[in-house]
Amino acid sequence: MFGNVPLPAKRLSDYRRIVGEERLEEIRALARPLRGARVLHLNSTAFGGGVAELLSALVPLLNTLGLRAEWQVIRGDQDLFAVTKSMHNGLQGMPVTWTNEMKETWLRFSRLNAALFDQEYDFVYVHDQQPLGLLAVLAEEHGKRGRWVWRCHVDLSTARSELWEFMRPYVEQYDGVVFTLPEFAKNGLKGPQVFAIPPGIDPLSPKNVALTNGTVTEVLARYGIDAGRPLLLQVSRFDPWKDPLGVIDAYRSVKEEEPSVQLVLIAPMAHDDPEGWSYLERTARKAGEDYDIHLLSNVNGVGDREVNAFQRAASVVIQKSVREGFGLVIAEALWKERPVVAANVGGIPLQVLDGKTGFLVNSIDEAAERTLRLLRQPELGRRLGEAGREHVRGNFLVTRYLRDHLQLMRAIAGVEAEPARHRGPSDIAAS
Amino acid sequence: MFGNVPLPAKRLSDYRRIVGEERLEEIRALARPLRGARVLHLNSTAFGGGVAELLSALVPLLNTLGLRAEWQVIRGDQDLFAVTKSMHNGLQGMPVTWTNEMKETWLRFSRLNAALFDQEYDFVYVHDQQPLGLLAVLAEEHGKRGRWVWRCHVDLSTARSELWEFMRPYVEQYDGVVFTLPEFAKNGLKGPQVFAIPPGIDPLSPKNVALTNGTVTEVLARYGIDAGRPLLLQVSRFDPWKDPLGVIDAYRSVKEEEPSVQLVLIAPMAHDDPEGWSYLERTARKAGEDYDIHLLSNVNGVGDREVNAFQRAASVVIQKSVREGFGLVIAEALWKERPVVAANVGGIPLQVLDGKTGFLVNSIDEAAERTLRLLRQPELGRRLGEAGREHVRGNFLVTRYLRDHLQLMRAIAGVEAEPARHRGPSDIAAS
Repeated sequence: MFGNVPLPAKRLSDYRRIVGEERLEEIRALARPLRGARVLHLNSTAFGGGVAELLSALVPLLNTLGLRAEWQVIRGDQDLFAVTKSMHNGLQGMPVTWTNEMKETWLRFSRLNAALFDQEYDFVYVHDQQPLGLLAVLAEEHGKRGRWVWRCHVDLSTARSELWEFMRPYVEQYDGVVFTLPEFAKNGLKGPQVFAIPPGIDPLSPKNVALTNGTVTEVLARYGIDAGRPLLLQVSRFDPWKDPLGVIDAYRSVKEEEPSVQLVLIAPMAHDDPEGWSYLERTARKAGEDYDIHLLSNVNGVGDREVNAFQRAASVVIQKSVREGFGLVIAEALWKERPVVAANVGGIPLQVLDGKTGFLVNSIDEAAERTLRLLRQPELGRRLGEAGREHVRGNFLVTRYLRDHLQLMRAIAGVEAEPARHRGPSDIAAS
Repeated sequence: MFGNVPLPAKRLSDYRRIVGEERLEEIRALARPLRGARVLHLNSTAFGGGVAELLSALVPLLNTLGLRAEWQVIRGDQDLFAVTKSMHNGLQGMPVTWTNEMKETWLRFSRLNAALFDQEYDFVYVHDQQPLGLLAVLAEEHGKRGRWVWRCHVDLSTARSELWEFMRPYVEQYDGVVFTLPEFAKNGLKGPQVFAIPPGIDPLSPKNVALTNGTVTEVLARYGIDAGRPLLLQVSRFDPWKDPLGVIDAYRSVKEEEPSVQLVLIAPMAHDDPEGWSYLERTARKAGEDYDIHLLSNVNGVGDREVNAFQRAASVVIQKSVREGFGLVIAEALWKERPVVAANVGGIPLQVLDGKTGFLVNSIDEAAERTLRLLRQPELGRRLGEAGREHVRGNFLVTRYLRDHLQLMRAIAGVEAEPARHRGPSDIAAS
């Protein structure tokens, strides 16, 4: 239909030395009755962002377990993505206009994509607001087939009600709805089972896999960073939610005490996102001609491997978000045993246990103070980093994420107990 | 072959009220013996830049005169355009690497595009370095057919010799070579006739056509410019050749004396041009948080119409280029009767006659001083602007450009005298 996103194969056994055999056995057992099930993940982009990263790991792992999983990307154009960006902002609580014309654009693409939907699946996962409307169109035209799950990656707790009331009837047609955290859910949904599944990182992806010191040094040198001086890092879009301007303020406070400090801000830049470019300009203007502040992006050739290297090189990793979904970038930093100073919002406090796996902060001054403390007490940073890695190993790796999804599929397909029942895929498809 | 660039039709008679009937008659007479001739203009992009603007006017006007003119764009990819960007820099005198691998990339695309070349023309104009190699490939495979003209839009007077010696044999296969100014030419070319044809603006294009005050005011308001305060403007790429950093320095000098002054820098931004983005960042950092400096581009929705409005609204138009081909943007500003302060480089002194149609400057201080003088003596600016418009009317409109090209085609086709001979297109094609 839309064309599969091609993905390299993965082997579950490669994760043994990271999580242990027991975890893998649990996963295999959960997968057994789902073997052969046809699973589709549908989202709006194959590149960039946490969703694409999660699917790059999850989909190959489902296949390695005997399911027949695919990842496809819906069709859209500038008009659609302008509308769904407004929806994204509105779901996060920003005042947005929500006109009939915008609804019509969104519905038009729901119909267009529904017309391209020409296969059958046992499970269809629909990610976020872009493809949400497909199910309604398909159900009306052909009746609903298979189990449908809406995976919402944003925090709906402050969603604008006019927008949410528009979306609600579409959501309520699903069998399951997955939020990142229970607090992100909308209460009172009639119909779907509601799940909370936090995401996880893939320790074997290019973004997280171990790198040699030589690689790290080479990447720093390529971007003119001095490996002999302390380095602060934030990896996040240039937008108000991620507050790069606040990070620069915190860095300036720190620099008064530690003049040798450097700051790297890394953001993905999308060509079709004028707001992102305009916020990059604003960030550059705030940075002024202090070239100890480095603004980097894919435009400068920064990819997963480079982000990995910068995270490993950072003296302190900062995440000064004003609002955050989960903030998977925190788990990436903790996995690399980095001391983290992060805002106390969204899913961050699940990852950063204050004083144990990093520091939670509520202001620029606090961010600067904790950062300075970590620069001056490397032993403290080391301790937090080590605890952070273990916390991630226990809770925020893709293997745990995989397990939760297998449990979810069993729950909505009615495969309750354990391998005892041995229901095959045809049972699921037919039931 | 490559697909024609679609162009709206033009009528020569629409230019009567601008240049007078006599000029149009001269053009029609020159065109008569060329009627029916098949003319191809080949370049590397249909968007952005002076070449695309020139062709948007020239090609429809050739058609209106009875020639069969087309504009097509060669195929290329990131690799090719990285190489041809280096070539562009090297032709302008910048030290560049020029490796065998780069030559091979350029040759590969010459062969690829030659294979797509499947029609016959009486005249083929090849613009700049990207499609230059086509003729050599075609001549070797099928023998040369028709007259070929290489139109070089850059100043070759300081071209790097290793690069130019590579290109020379390709250039020497052409029947004609056209430079913008005689000083831009390479001497000692064996083979082609050499012409100098400065470009011209189309007074009826969206970039230059008259606008109402209401439109101008609306555009300023949309971008947060205060119409009640003086406005300096430079329209040019963000790159070292155009020296936006020097413009900001000059603006700062002026602002010390005239604190109400605003600066607008407008540049076209191409998605595939990392250097452009990086220089935008540098310009934004130089601007710092002085939001009386506005950095605008197509990314903010600035198109031809908006540029037109900003040019009409400018108190002074600046062009602080370090190096310049012709600088058609000067003619645009003069046509709008704007006082211009511009660097004494490239084709600029042809347009800006110092003290008569604007001011030529050699330094930031001079630029600031002349700008300040123009802000304080609006009557002086008005006088320069009026003289500038007449200078452009006489020399730098597309009608003169059209006339020169008709003369060129007659010269290389051997149509010497005047309509007396009445040679038709078949004569030309066969000769």
